[in-house]
Amino acid sequence: MKKIKLISLTNIIIFIFTLNTFSAQTQNTYTMQRDTVFAKGEKIDTGNFTGIAYLNVLIASDKENPTAVGNVTFEPKARTKWHLHPAGQILLVTDGVGYYQEKGQPKKILRKGDVIKCPANVEHWHGASADTYFVQVAITNNDKGNAVWLHAVSDEEYYK
Amino acid sequence: MKKIKLISLTNIIIFIFTLNTFSAQTQNTYTMQRDTVFAKGEKIDTGNFTGIAYLNVLIASDKENPTAVGNVTFEPKARTKWHLHPAGQILLVTDGVGYYQEKGQPKKILRKGDVIKCPANVEHWHGASADTYFVQVAITNNDKGNAVWLHAVSDEEYYK
Repeated sequence: MKKIKLISLTNIIIFIFTLNTFSAQTQNTYTMQRDTVFAKGEKIDTGNFTGIAYLNVLIASDKENPTAVGNVTFEPKARTKWHLHPAGQILLVTDGVGYYQEKGQPKKILRKGDVIKCPANVEHWHGASADTYFVQVAITNNDKGNAVWLHAVSDEEYYK
Repeated sequence: MKKIKLISLTNIIIFIFTLNTFSAQTQNTYTMQRDTVFAKGEKIDTGNFTGIAYLNVLIASDKENPTAVGNVTFEPKARTKWHLHPAGQILLVTDGVGYYQEKGQPKKILRKGDVIKCPANVEHWHGASADTYFVQVAITNNDKGNAVWLHAVSDEEYYK
């Protein structure tokens, strides 16, 4: 009788552990899918990026409202070239870990919830950290012209 | 012996149900916290909203870049008054379920990942659905002036 009770108790404990493990796995998967607010979009092939990145154009600029909004997803190590915007740019970090650097300034580490206001005509780059993907919403006012693209961010600059 | 086995089996089944219920509750709480990219900010007391809503100013407009970005969280049934923007507005839905309506048009239901480009000087309102909170990022170009606030959205208009 005692032996049977012990076996039943062992069974229950095994069940609890199994369920908890299963639950933890489900949560992780679910959370990663849910965290990405916008679809990844299309692979960027403009030559203005190093590594693999994706753009989902959320809002195109037009004559009435010159503000363009795009969701950019960078795979680890992917980054923009150095560039500048004639009317500045705003970045909203929605997921992952990334970098942002203005010329002559140290590299900043960006995480979900961080925001950046990049001044007009200031050379800068942004992208994913070395080990983690990075997702940002870029808000760009194009009424003074489009971005001016410069040279690639070297590995030396990237890892500094 | 058979009776004891049956009791143990019943115990196990009860445990499974209990754990599943607990797990579902934990997941919901966790997901809601993770889904909110930006902090809720401060309760809005401008008189331009019906119900309870919160604003987190992410980026203020300035002379160089007239684009303002704010994260707005609406509790269920909360909504803006009817209003318009002299240079239009862009809304990015980051969580929850909400409504958007332009004057003379049917109400649109908005969910995470939806985007809205509201034209300049078009009367509109936005807010949460009746049962669910709603989180949006509002991108407003203030170079032609601030929002013009009109009358409240009546319950009749809201539920239509």
